[in-house]
Amino acid sequence: MLFMNRHELKDLILKKRSFLCVGLDTRPDGIPGFLKEVSEDPVFEFNRRIIDATIDLAIAYKPNLAFYESAGSKGWLSLEKTIHYLANHPRGPVFTIADAKRADIGNTAQQYAGAFFEHMPFDALTVNPYLGRDAVKPFLSYPGKWAIILALTSNPGARDFQMLQPQLPFFLEKFGIKTSYGKKLFELVMEESSRWGTPDNTMFVVGATHPGFLSSVREIVPDHFLLIPGVGAQGGKLGNIARMVINKDVGIIVNSSRDIIYASSGKDFDTAAKMAAQALQQQMAHILKTEINQ
Amino acid sequence: MLFMNRHELKDLILKKRSFLCVGLDTRPDGIPGFLKEVSEDPVFEFNRRIIDATIDLAIAYKPNLAFYESAGSKGWLSLEKTIHYLANHPRGPVFTIADAKRADIGNTAQQYAGAFFEHMPFDALTVNPYLGRDAVKPFLSYPGKWAIILALTSNPGARDFQMLQPQLPFFLEKFGIKTSYGKKLFELVMEESSRWGTPDNTMFVVGATHPGFLSSVREIVPDHFLLIPGVGAQGGKLGNIARMVINKDVGIIVNSSRDIIYASSGKDFDTAAKMAAQALQQQMAHILKTEINQ
Repeated sequence: MLFMNRHELKDLILKKRSFLCVGLDTRPDGIPGFLKEVSEDPVFEFNRRIIDATIDLAIAYKPNLAFYESAGSKGWLSLEKTIHYLANHPRGPVFTIADAKRADIGNTAQQYAGAFFEHMPFDALTVNPYLGRDAVKPFLSYPGKWAIILALTSNPGARDFQMLQPQLPFFLEKFGIKTSYGKKLFELVMEESSRWGTPDNTMFVVGATHPGFLSSVREIVPDHFLLIPGVGAQGGKLGNIARMVINKDVGIIVNSSRDIIYASSGKDFDTAAKMAAQALQQQMAHILKTEINQ
Repeated sequence: MLFMNRHELKDLILKKRSFLCVGLDTRPDGIPGFLKEVSEDPVFEFNRRIIDATIDLAIAYKPNLAFYESAGSKGWLSLEKTIHYLANHPRGPVFTIADAKRADIGNTAQQYAGAFFEHMPFDALTVNPYLGRDAVKPFLSYPGKWAIILALTSNPGARDFQMLQPQLPFFLEKFGIKTSYGKKLFELVMEESSRWGTPDNTMFVVGATHPGFLSSVREIVPDHFLLIPGVGAQGGKLGNIARMVINKDVGIIVNSSRDIIYASSGKDFDTAAKMAAQALQQQMAHILKTEINQ
């Protein structure tokens, strides 16, 4: 889809009764062997069949760049074919996220924006906040496109820096910025970076592996959509998670990668993916009904 | 070069009397027009001529991924040709850095390591520390390869989070880790991440635009090499910077991108690049002589 605003995203979720994102973490050496015999680009062929099997149950797809780059330019070609297939799917629209976790200084970030928002028609890009405002702003200058900022990631290393408790320099109080003693780095990242854009062009990544922090996340950004990885394979529980962060616009996209795309390693991989996606979609339909009466 | 350890890097610097890294930030629309007539891959042709013109004056080359990705799979093909040209240059060896600023959770970071250290023969990769230890460790498990961790970047946004003063959770004192009240985030990032590897497989990025912090950086990591961008176009002064961080193993690589590769936009771009590189190399030879008597 070329453009999807927050209300269109909400409408899509309510229509499909699903807030599922399928993570296309497609490992070239992890796909069923028979695909190498039926296609010159087995990675794209795998993605194509996964997409066809799950597109009525999912509202978003998220290829992770690492899995394509491991095969170099050939992998990027598979990615380009995948995003064009998604953007033009007859059973679309779907929301497309390049999980690239990019960040660089301003003039360089602009080149990354060109890669994902012009050269390829992704709706959204995941962005690392460590380099600050000028590394994120270029992604927010494209009307209808989204930056999804890493706040609290789902991995063990999230504890190394994201949970540090920084104190802002006191001189910032002169500019009306709270020095916020005692808040954690990821909370300050959300407070600060939520001011760079709006809930219509910014989302945040918050891992399902940290349920204890989800309520405080929702307090900091009441209106923003959250992209939540780590449900399933990494251990987070869908119902508990969703109840803590769902808002009037739904405001939540839950990603599942391995549990869906590798549900079976045989010839039935696409049927198995569909069943795994359906199980999640049915839970989501129930959550939408019970939590926000939709 | 497939493997270059710290001592080989030092020897190369002393032999060439240079600690210059040429940043190959090659914008497809920024190269001289005539190259499009002489080559089907003008980006690679530009890089090839820049490399041939500067390789006796530089010890390292650093393509920034953003500039290649803006052209998608075609750009990645230019990058692949460039790294193979560098790795096999008859006037080599040179140290090669993929300036990709990657980071992702452990199993995904492993895929990025495969991309840059196996699929392509880079010596080093720049890495973003926000996701913590398990996002960096996969890059440190390749013998002879290097992770170059972003500490303090050269852009204005460095002030947003890297200069926050975090307080570590008190319980860490139980494990012998100083809670370090009052240190800045980038200092804590260096303290913590310097423990993940050794000075033989880890370097740090510290921007030349923050000369006031260079002494404290050198105190935190006395033995590590520093990769310093931001000299020249972004405003840092080579002599002042180098004197503050040079150590017995030299310990410093200074990057220059635009000032060299875009020294002229005409047919003489490679000769102009050589002259710009030579001016820096001569300053560096002087610094090596006066500062560490080499």
